[in-house]
Amino acid sequence: MAYDAVQTRTNLLDAAFNEFAERGFAGARISRIAEVASANKQAIYLYFTSKEGLFDAVLANRLGILADAVPFTAEDLPGYIAALFDHFVEDPRLLRLTQWKDLERPEPSQPEVDSHVSKAQTLAQTHRLGDAEGMDILMLTLSMAKAWPTTGLAIRDIGQDDETRRRQHRRALVAAVATLVAPRSGL
Amino acid sequence: MAYDAVQTRTNLLDAAFNEFAERGFAGARISRIAEVASANKQAIYLYFTSKEGLFDAVLANRLGILADAVPFTAEDLPGYIAALFDHFVEDPRLLRLTQWKDLERPEPSQPEVDSHVSKAQTLAQTHRLGDAEGMDILMLTLSMAKAWPTTGLAIRDIGQDDETRRRQHRRALVAAVATLVAPRSGL
Repeated sequence: MAYDAVQTRTNLLDAAFNEFAERGFAGARISRIAEVASANKQAIYLYFTSKEGLFDAVLANRLGILADAVPFTAEDLPGYIAALFDHFVEDPRLLRLTQWKDLERPEPSQPEVDSHVSKAQTLAQTHRLGDAEGMDILMLTLSMAKAWPTTGLAIRDIGQDDETRRRQHRRALVAAVATLVAPRSGL
Repeated sequence: MAYDAVQTRTNLLDAAFNEFAERGFAGARISRIAEVASANKQAIYLYFTSKEGLFDAVLANRLGILADAVPFTAEDLPGYIAALFDHFVEDPRLLRLTQWKDLERPEPSQPEVDSHVSKAQTLAQTHRLGDAEGMDILMLTLSMAKAWPTTGLAIRDIGQDDETRRRQHRRALVAAVATLVAPRSGL
């Protein structure tokens, strides 16, 4: 691709990430994405075939960025979940994107399946568990990382300030994850 | 209210529950709800004022039904979370409704705030924790109850059949919740 084409594609992915995270798949408007990216709608269909193709490309792109920013560490699951939590707190867009996807396009893509299954298997090997046990621990701890950003301030703060509560909650999260992997791996 | 009015209101709440759970707040169509409920659109505005009012009424109605079906048991948190899990598995609509709400109308209503805060406080008293600790355990365990229904089959089943995996996951969930409340309450 020529430089301009690469730049246009990048601009479209960035604009689409914001639009899909904010409004979901059904609510997103291709015309708004094109406008924000200073591109035309034809470029979207040229590079991504369809709105579905654009959504899938945005998700794959952002999951790749996440995997680089927060590498999976099976031997330190509390550390991984804490880093994921920090990532969600810093930028809520990817979590929102996956929540929209769960509701609107629930079938996981093959890269998503592969990424989860390989994490579960690595976790199982590291902590001497069955693959299914590894998957359950992965699912339960990933869910716990989402508790804070998906709970309203008026609930989670319970009368205290949000920054104090965020630190308390992060410690509770790390302790909870440690408890789930400790009993079998610590001996 | 006359019998017909009560019946119409019930029909509207039921039709709106299905529509909002399926398509979310923005995607729901008032005309479709009226048609399924064999009512007219004016009845919706008469009883619920607006689309927002209808959504809030559906949510309050269903949270009330849930509270009766799955009473909160602070002294048996694993049992409560397991019952909630079973409820979500049996009927995914309420979980979907709350997921749409998190994305589209994230500000919790006062009844939602009160319901969570009172559970956290009861949990804290029962297990001799601070209120904030009680809230963190509540948030983390509620999130874990949602892991299974919000994870795609191709991921969660890890090559086994879904019913076997559901039973395994339920046991892992109960054990995880027990671990989170046990260290302090067991002695």
